[in-house]
Amino acid sequence: MYRTHTCGELRLANAGEIVTLAGWVQRTRKMGGMTFVDVRDRYGITQICFEEQPSEGQTDACNTLFEQANKLGREYVIQVTGTVNERSNKNKNLPTGDIEIIASKLVVLNESVTPPFTIEDQSDGGDDLRMKYRYLDLRRTPVRSNLELRHKMTMEVRRYLDSLGFLEIETPMLIGSTPEGARDFVVPSRMNPGQFYALPQSPQTLKQLLMVSGMDRYFQIVKCFRDEDLRADRQPEFTQIDCEMSFVTQEDILQTFEGMAKHLFKELRGIELKEAFPRMTWADAMKYYGSDKPDTRFGMKFVELKDLFAQAPGFSVFDDAKYIGGICATGQAVYTRKQIDQLTDFVKRPQIGAKGMVYARVQDDGSVKSSVDKFYDQNVLSALKEKMNAQPGDLILILSGDDAMKTRKQLCELRLEMGSRMGLRDKNQFSLLWVIDFPMFEWSEEEGRLMATHHPFTHPKDEDIPLLDTDPAAVRADAYDMVCNGVEVGGGSIRIHDPELQDKMFRILGFTEERAQEQFGFLMNAFKYGAPPHGGLAYGLDRWVSLFAGLDSIRDCIAFPKNNSGRDVMLDAPACLEQKQLDELYLSLKPVEN
Amino acid sequence: MYRTHTCGELRLANAGEIVTLAGWVQRTRKMGGMTFVDVRDRYGITQICFEEQPSEGQTDACNTLFEQANKLGREYVIQVTGTVNERSNKNKNLPTGDIEIIASKLVVLNESVTPPFTIEDQSDGGDDLRMKYRYLDLRRTPVRSNLELRHKMTMEVRRYLDSLGFLEIETPMLIGSTPEGARDFVVPSRMNPGQFYALPQSPQTLKQLLMVSGMDRYFQIVKCFRDEDLRADRQPEFTQIDCEMSFVTQEDILQTFEGMAKHLFKELRGIELKEAFPRMTWADAMKYYGSDKPDTRFGMKFVELKDLFAQAPGFSVFDDAKYIGGICATGQAVYTRKQIDQLTDFVKRPQIGAKGMVYARVQDDGSVKSSVDKFYDQNVLSALKEKMNAQPGDLILILSGDDAMKTRKQLCELRLEMGSRMGLRDKNQFSLLWVIDFPMFEWSEEEGRLMATHHPFTHPKDEDIPLLDTDPAAVRADAYDMVCNGVEVGGGSIRIHDPELQDKMFRILGFTEERAQEQFGFLMNAFKYGAPPHGGLAYGLDRWVSLFAGLDSIRDCIAFPKNNSGRDVMLDAPACLEQKQLDELYLSLKPVEN
Repeated sequence: MYRTHTCGELRLANAGEIVTLAGWVQRTRKMGGMTFVDVRDRYGITQICFEEQPSEGQTDACNTLFEQANKLGREYVIQVTGTVNERSNKNKNLPTGDIEIIASKLVVLNESVTPPFTIEDQSDGGDDLRMKYRYLDLRRTPVRSNLELRHKMTMEVRRYLDSLGFLEIETPMLIGSTPEGARDFVVPSRMNPGQFYALPQSPQTLKQLLMVSGMDRYFQIVKCFRDEDLRADRQPEFTQIDCEMSFVTQEDILQTFEGMAKHLFKELRGIELKEAFPRMTWADAMKYYGSDKPDTRFGMKFVELKDLFAQAPGFSVFDDAKYIGGICATGQAVYTRKQIDQLTDFVKRPQIGAKGMVYARVQDDGSVKSSVDKFYDQNVLSALKEKMNAQPGDLILILSGDDAMKTRKQLCELRLEMGSRMGLRDKNQFSLLWVIDFPMFEWSEEEGRLMATHHPFTHPKDEDIPLLDTDPAAVRADAYDMVCNGVEVGGGSIRIHDPELQDKMFRILGFTEERAQEQFGFLMNAFKYGAPPHGGLAYGLDRWVSLFAGLDSIRDCIAFPKNNSGRDVMLDAPACLEQKQLDELYLSLKPVEN
Repeated sequence: MYRTHTCGELRLANAGEIVTLAGWVQRTRKMGGMTFVDVRDRYGITQICFEEQPSEGQTDACNTLFEQANKLGREYVIQVTGTVNERSNKNKNLPTGDIEIIASKLVVLNESVTPPFTIEDQSDGGDDLRMKYRYLDLRRTPVRSNLELRHKMTMEVRRYLDSLGFLEIETPMLIGSTPEGARDFVVPSRMNPGQFYALPQSPQTLKQLLMVSGMDRYFQIVKCFRDEDLRADRQPEFTQIDCEMSFVTQEDILQTFEGMAKHLFKELRGIELKEAFPRMTWADAMKYYGSDKPDTRFGMKFVELKDLFAQAPGFSVFDDAKYIGGICATGQAVYTRKQIDQLTDFVKRPQIGAKGMVYARVQDDGSVKSSVDKFYDQNVLSALKEKMNAQPGDLILILSGDDAMKTRKQLCELRLEMGSRMGLRDKNQFSLLWVIDFPMFEWSEEEGRLMATHHPFTHPKDEDIPLLDTDPAAVRADAYDMVCNGVEVGGGSIRIHDPELQDKMFRILGFTEERAQEQFGFLMNAFKYGAPPHGGLAYGLDRWVSLFAGLDSIRDCIAFPKNNSGRDVMLDAPACLEQKQLDELYLSLKPVEN
């Protein structure tokens, strides 16, 4: 047996016991005739004490032991036997800080060369080194604890769903490619030369087949794959908590998964979310927050100002704008000219793309001082103050533009920036809501046709079904997202179970009958044999863990993530194949044009 | 709300309640003025009763309802509201058999065309139809209950391992290819043209990295991939319960996972396995059972007979044989000549390949009557009887050959066949054991070199390390398999954590330094930074579930399995890609030679 206890386990009550620990040398310090070695494992750190002088009753062996201890390097793997002793100099920051081990035996299980960075909470050597030496990075408590949280979360998800009768059912990873949507990763089949499997972007169609098969309540924590050009915080492989239920309405699903979120917050963060999650229509989310995933930790809702300024034309920017919207930053009238300029630069960045920003300070006397004073008299500015519900000391920020949707998105960025600056986006405060009534379709400039906002199986709202024939762009769907702190953490929809309605949907989306048959024939065929009403939802596990852990990036809750080029720099993958492997797959490589 | 109860839920205590159920029409029967409809969901079946004559207090609406009910077809999806009523004619075979629902409302949620086979326990339409219409096959109780068992098993595995401090950590699916071992499935990388990821055959190296990273106790229920020509009962994607522990000896691992097996048997089958699992060396398993996965539900151990027959030469087959082995089939002396001939044909089949079989019956008077009477006198036959410990009425079966290993494997097949014929292989009896001390290497005729029996990271037994230099073929490993009823359900090893020993191992396996570096450089590099002693094990989940469910094939515990050509006939995958997809991957197809 390598150890009697872990390095996080011993307490004062163990004093006097002879124990054996094993772990990594965190650090060694020589003080007078003593050498102290902190030995670390996943569970904690324990201080080991090596004495130079043999104490009474001990032999000269001690000095050899002492010499051995002084040769230990950082990250050596050691096994130590000794007696648990009460420390004179207790360390209150360490659960094991009341004790130390007086060593009587030391075995070096493995040596270590000097690591490229020290294994400390605050020292990670930078992103490139961290990823190359991820196995060392994972020894650091902040990174390890993210993986511990991830484990606990998946345990609790399973416990919750199992208690409600959900079955976890594995769906295949080697499926067929569907050119609709994002790009698939494909897998050449040696046994079927010239043919390819695809890795699933989600088990969407498979879970719908499971509903046709009567499985009633399905879930799966499952790897999904998407061959996208990686923006920040996307991974080519990611994990979903994928769920589907039969004989349910949207209300049943929202209740079930709101329950799951509450369960997780309670079990993992000790937070009781007692109130029902607010529900906001997509239209309101866009109107008041310029986003389908509003950060509702703070207010600062958009106020539409077009009508107000239209009463007193003169400022051509506003006169020509289709949309004018403002936010009111409480108490920020103290912003200096320089700070205002920074904000203006912020919204003018190419990623945001506003043309400019108008501001108005509400002075202590209630009068308004703005960047457009010369265009508007105090009456208009006073009306602005009223409409914005602004108080003395507040700062009003206004964006305008000729595309309402684009301008709202710009204003959304400004609102979030102000929220951050004002400290209103505390990572330890959680504001959850449902965004519902998403539009069924969105227009794709690229494709020149309507595309499904969620996917082609999403059920339109019953009351909007007549609009499918007359005004499809106005149709809303039984689709919903769970949003937390401005992050979409999950989303789903009620699915179409009526084959005729599904046919109509494919027609509107511009699928020919052949193409629909080719891509989704198996599903449409299955639906002929008695499909139940069903719907579901998928949570992004990586995002969900990041949120609970307060991480900025999903990378840190993934054991071995890939970089922005989709490479695993530790494994050095992907890599070239041997010719023999290509030959067996009947593949050849085409030269890459530069 | 679509239903107030499931179809498996109502009991006599609910009599009088007005309820709503939803599900599939299992069957309809018209009897006099009544129509009975069995409605089915995942949870059970409930009988619905539609009455022709309106009962007292009900309106004429009943007749419309009755007509509606008579139009229902098999597998229609319906929603029924009605009153729970005590049945006069109770069905004791059905948990809901005490009640029926007197229908007051019927909604057809979806119709069904006639399914290609009826949804009954015993009717599956044959393998091809089952796979093509898997979503209908899954409606059948025997198939569905396998998936329910699979869900329960993974829940219990996680519960057990979590309680012991194991963390479930996801390892990546897109990794690097290692041409060693079975063939990888590969995935072309669009962002890294000409390069490929590989899908993991197992997370072996990654879990070892997790041990280097100090994760201490890891597990994962994970999809693995192997591009093999599929023998019966192999799938290109399969699921492993993959585990690894640090600071452990082989004994720690056997204890931990024996505990897991016992936990599963108790929770899932109600079987308490109280005794410690027997441990058998690989050498003994081969000697007494001719297999590294002996079926120990019955004895019939091999007895070596070369020495015995060598005393009385004359029968050239035995004289020339390097190995002669026999088994004693208790009470089977009654076998007719015809039955014996069948057995002889059995062992002579090309898959088994024996040249012939010798038999000896022990008569009631204790004398022996054999097929080689003319070569051996009664003294030798009597000695045979002694050595085989055979009693009057027993049948002795003997195989011989010039390759001991091959002959033992033939005798193994004969023993299993006799076990089956004698009813000694009851699916509801479970006999578990550990096979230990596997040989470190095996000679590959194909490669002309030693290959790792498990993998190149397996630790040799300490006492055999000196043999690495002198007689590597004799080296035994700290490797172990868990065997149940003749099936290997899991296996693993202690890993090498000493970089020098690992180097030596690679040399013996014929890796050049460059090649070792190329394939396993990341692991060898990691090992320089303080690798702890570690080891692990992987269970085959599919096989484990099959065993618990008493299935002959793993296919039936997989929701959507592939056929022997690696095809999913339901999805019709794999399939050809569009040219655009190939172009984006810089790939072209080579013609297949016929």
